[in-house]
Amino acid sequence: MLFKLSEYCRRMEKTRAAMAEKGLDILIVTDPANMNYLTGYDGWSFYVHQGLVLFQDRDQPIWFGRQQDSNGARITTWLDEDHILGYEDHYVQSRTVHPYDVVADLIQQKGFGSKKIGVEKDNYYFTARCLEHLKKGLPNAGFLDGELIVNWVRCVKSPSELNYMKMAGQILERVMDTAVRLIEPGVREGDVAAEVYRAMISGTPEFTGDYSAIIPIMPSGKRTTTAHLSWTDRRYKKNEIILLELSGCKHRYHAPLSRTVITGRPDPELDGISKTVIQGLNRVVDFIRPGIQAREIEEEWRRSIAGSRVVKESRIGYAFGLNYPPDWGEHTISLRPGDLTVLEPGMTIHVMPGIWTDTLGFECSEAVYVTETGCETFSRVPRQLFIK
Amino acid sequence: MLFKLSEYCRRMEKTRAAMAEKGLDILIVTDPANMNYLTGYDGWSFYVHQGLVLFQDRDQPIWFGRQQDSNGARITTWLDEDHILGYEDHYVQSRTVHPYDVVADLIQQKGFGSKKIGVEKDNYYFTARCLEHLKKGLPNAGFLDGELIVNWVRCVKSPSELNYMKMAGQILERVMDTAVRLIEPGVREGDVAAEVYRAMISGTPEFTGDYSAIIPIMPSGKRTTTAHLSWTDRRYKKNEIILLELSGCKHRYHAPLSRTVITGRPDPELDGISKTVIQGLNRVVDFIRPGIQAREIEEEWRRSIAGSRVVKESRIGYAFGLNYPPDWGEHTISLRPGDLTVLEPGMTIHVMPGIWTDTLGFECSEAVYVTETGCETFSRVPRQLFIK
Repeated sequence: MLFKLSEYCRRMEKTRAAMAEKGLDILIVTDPANMNYLTGYDGWSFYVHQGLVLFQDRDQPIWFGRQQDSNGARITTWLDEDHILGYEDHYVQSRTVHPYDVVADLIQQKGFGSKKIGVEKDNYYFTARCLEHLKKGLPNAGFLDGELIVNWVRCVKSPSELNYMKMAGQILERVMDTAVRLIEPGVREGDVAAEVYRAMISGTPEFTGDYSAIIPIMPSGKRTTTAHLSWTDRRYKKNEIILLELSGCKHRYHAPLSRTVITGRPDPELDGISKTVIQGLNRVVDFIRPGIQAREIEEEWRRSIAGSRVVKESRIGYAFGLNYPPDWGEHTISLRPGDLTVLEPGMTIHVMPGIWTDTLGFECSEAVYVTETGCETFSRVPRQLFIK
Repeated sequence: MLFKLSEYCRRMEKTRAAMAEKGLDILIVTDPANMNYLTGYDGWSFYVHQGLVLFQDRDQPIWFGRQQDSNGARITTWLDEDHILGYEDHYVQSRTVHPYDVVADLIQQKGFGSKKIGVEKDNYYFTARCLEHLKKGLPNAGFLDGELIVNWVRCVKSPSELNYMKMAGQILERVMDTAVRLIEPGVREGDVAAEVYRAMISGTPEFTGDYSAIIPIMPSGKRTTTAHLSWTDRRYKKNEIILLELSGCKHRYHAPLSRTVITGRPDPELDGISKTVIQGLNRVVDFIRPGIQAREIEEEWRRSIAGSRVVKESRIGYAFGLNYPPDWGEHTISLRPGDLTVLEPGMTIHVMPGIWTDTLGFECSEAVYVTETGCETFSRVPRQLFIK
């Protein structure tokens, strides 16, 4: 167990309090990060339907998943044997039956068939068909939106969680150093990506690392004009921009970071953008503290870049932490106009003002946690354009 | 472009024919592998809502996604500029608006507001909320199940696709060799995982590799009693079982394989299971040929293990190929009772009769493609229990 039982119990209590606020008798938790947060469950089994059923009036949720994954729940969670429900294999990717038929039966049997049930409506792993089968199996139940309930509980990290994120930050420093060190004209992009992966997983002499919820994003040249392309078979050329959005991960907790490399001298456009963005990033990191709203951080950024030629229409950051593919973001706080979330100590934010124009990209970011008085970064990597 | 335009056009034609059979005027394709298959689109952007809108009466689909990813569509797809629609950033993870509001508007504007629309109802990236917003925006449309339409078109691979899968197979041989070679008592599991990743991405001297849709699954000891746990911080011990479900990946095409290692001598239980499973696997691989049904393969397996102490209740294999996290499986063919799919040349199947009891696990699999007369494997790795 990665956390004390008392910590899991506090998380459950907070979640049940949030359920009560929304008038929910049951919450079905599908997000693998939320499942892990509440029970410790950790396995690459989210490619089949699985989840937790939380009851307003019970301490323990019920884990449901494929039969062959149920020993994974026994090994990685604090749940009792009678709270682990493995469904039979013929429910997997069937043309006739669906795992949520089993979930509906379970809820019916427990006497909650006409109660109010929250579901994570916009989670990757809660498909349109899941809701259809639930509604069919529970025609008298009320279905409410339970999305992000647990995500918001996750928003403020405990000291133990921050500790894992700091370990991820230590790994990240090695990962970023590896990439910057190895990129050279003539080297295959995939060979650098391979060493980046190795650094991410081998970690430090004290602890190894885990897979990241997002692959190393490391496009070059023309491919830097967009946010989510990565390495190819080709070799780096001279005078080429390479974006690096990389991370360390420990026990599913992330520390992400972006930097930019150029294999040559930056032209005036890149030089101007890099200076403006780094200055803006510095100002934002100095500005972050408890008590301010998320939107104010973006305003500070906009004040900083005012008068420059940098245009930035997308959000400049988001909450992150514990996660599984496809995202390390928590889908709660966004640094953009209209986000009124008030920062608290223990919140963790990736300040990521990425720039992608039709001719080039530039990225320089910081992952920070809010302290009592300001914020601290998870890693120490110079904020600069790396010239190779 | 990884394939000729004519190949993409054939894929579109087959898909539109399948749409016609189901009476669909429009198909919204959300599965990232299906998007890639039809247009070439390839980016780690599926953590926000994106997709393709296919029209029964038009050659080109419309790509929709986040604005900052639209240059990714320009770079990686064959679509014309007016078939790429980037939505504004404030739609991302918003509490008030949703990207499928934009999709509904698009369909309305194109005059399809009261037509029949297929959606991939059980795809990871088509959430319950996506359907809610579509229905709200298109109150007069009919919504039908369009799940797996493209997956079934993908089922038979072209020679060019098989070529990429064979490249993945070459990478896989190096990946598996790396794992088997480096596992030793005293070595950290994470350090072997790191080298596995490096082998997977650095590929061969001729070509590098890509990230796999499933992480390296490599549990040890007690953790082998379930299907989807992986490495930890700990060091391998003597007399410990280690499962290896690994892969090579090239241009998103996979070649997966499972093997088992023991750091010591197998006890009689493991020895018996391994012999039974390998014999069953051999028989199944010899048996696979065009014209038989998927269920018959499972029957052949069951005949082979009859009389042994091996119990296997879950499916023994599935179709695989082009994919993105969280699965390299295609969710079409399953080797199990009731699957009447008739095998054709070019179909690709991972025969994976994994055994997970309450005390141990054993895995030995083969990834094959169906030929005119039988089947061939994608890699040559001895079918044995590896004793270290």
